[in-house]
Amino acid sequence: MSKREEIARAALQQFQAHGFHATGINTITQAAGVPKGSFYNHFSSKEESALETLNRYAATLRFDMLTEPGRPALVRLRAHFEHLGRDTLDNGFVRGCLAGNLGAEVADHNEEIRSAVRHGFDRWASHIQQVLDEAQEAGDLDSALDTSATALFILSAWEGTLISARVEKSAAPVEAFFRIVFDVVLR
Amino acid sequence: MSKREEIARAALQQFQAHGFHATGINTITQAAGVPKGSFYNHFSSKEESALETLNRYAATLRFDMLTEPGRPALVRLRAHFEHLGRDTLDNGFVRGCLAGNLGAEVADHNEEIRSAVRHGFDRWASHIQQVLDEAQEAGDLDSALDTSATALFILSAWEGTLISARVEKSAAPVEAFFRIVFDVVLR
Repeated sequence: MSKREEIARAALQQFQAHGFHATGINTITQAAGVPKGSFYNHFSSKEESALETLNRYAATLRFDMLTEPGRPALVRLRAHFEHLGRDTLDNGFVRGCLAGNLGAEVADHNEEIRSAVRHGFDRWASHIQQVLDEAQEAGDLDSALDTSATALFILSAWEGTLISARVEKSAAPVEAFFRIVFDVVLR
Repeated sequence: MSKREEIARAALQQFQAHGFHATGINTITQAAGVPKGSFYNHFSSKEESALETLNRYAATLRFDMLTEPGRPALVRLRAHFEHLGRDTLDNGFVRGCLAGNLGAEVADHNEEIRSAVRHGFDRWASHIQQVLDEAQEAGDLDSALDTSATALFILSAWEGTLISARVEKSAAPVEAFFRIVFDVVLR
């Protein structure tokens, strides 16, 4: 593994575990097992490493699950959120969503990071909307539902759900999400 | 105003604007216009001032609006969320909810703050559930809806909605929240 790769992986873990301000370049290089100075051979700033981290995180979200052929649209949507919840549910209700966490922590103050999270949210909402459109075409979803507003709402609801699960240290918010989204909103 | 009151008010503003880690005791005392040392005459730590800040923030949420007599339950619920969204919508999509922000930033690492946010969320969810129960009794809400899961879900959805609004710098997530919650979930 290249030194850049080691630093980038460590940065992803640290930002996920601690957020933006509580993560120092020191923490990242220590976790990567490289000298502190080597950070700047690969990244110009902590912000730049956070932006790379967001890209790497997006790749773990498995948007491809949403378009996987062979399963009904709403079954794919449910599997997608089950995938997204696994890390938080299996690890004692920690971490949540890196994009949502960085958004909550620094959207007001760091335009580069806000813009990267926004780009990720927009892409994600558009994937969710496509799935909802497909479900409508297949007759599995009320055709009167506004799929654009619903996709945006489901995304926001999911981000808040992960915060509640971490605050409550409980799966109840995640269970409520699946119940209301799939049995009420998308019935 | 007492010096303690000045420090507590400044702490609320600073934690709301910058989050937990980006707010230093220095920043708080500067904003309060008091010498740095005087902070420790009133609070033992930054954490203690954040806990007091959460209490003061809870008082601004106007849970009393949810029980105000004379208006149907769901009308009161809508007015409550319109009240909660006003600060973020009127100020360029910043700040959001202090409890959700502290939850997202430090729930994994600070048990005292997590527990205070959890207490606030639990109290809030129980208020929302009461309103939904009332709406069911009045025949304004599907009696098959699980009001406990729905209250928890609406709370989480609202927290995520404020993050999306700050990330998107747009009212669209808030509009989607009102549309899906009131026209679809609570129809």
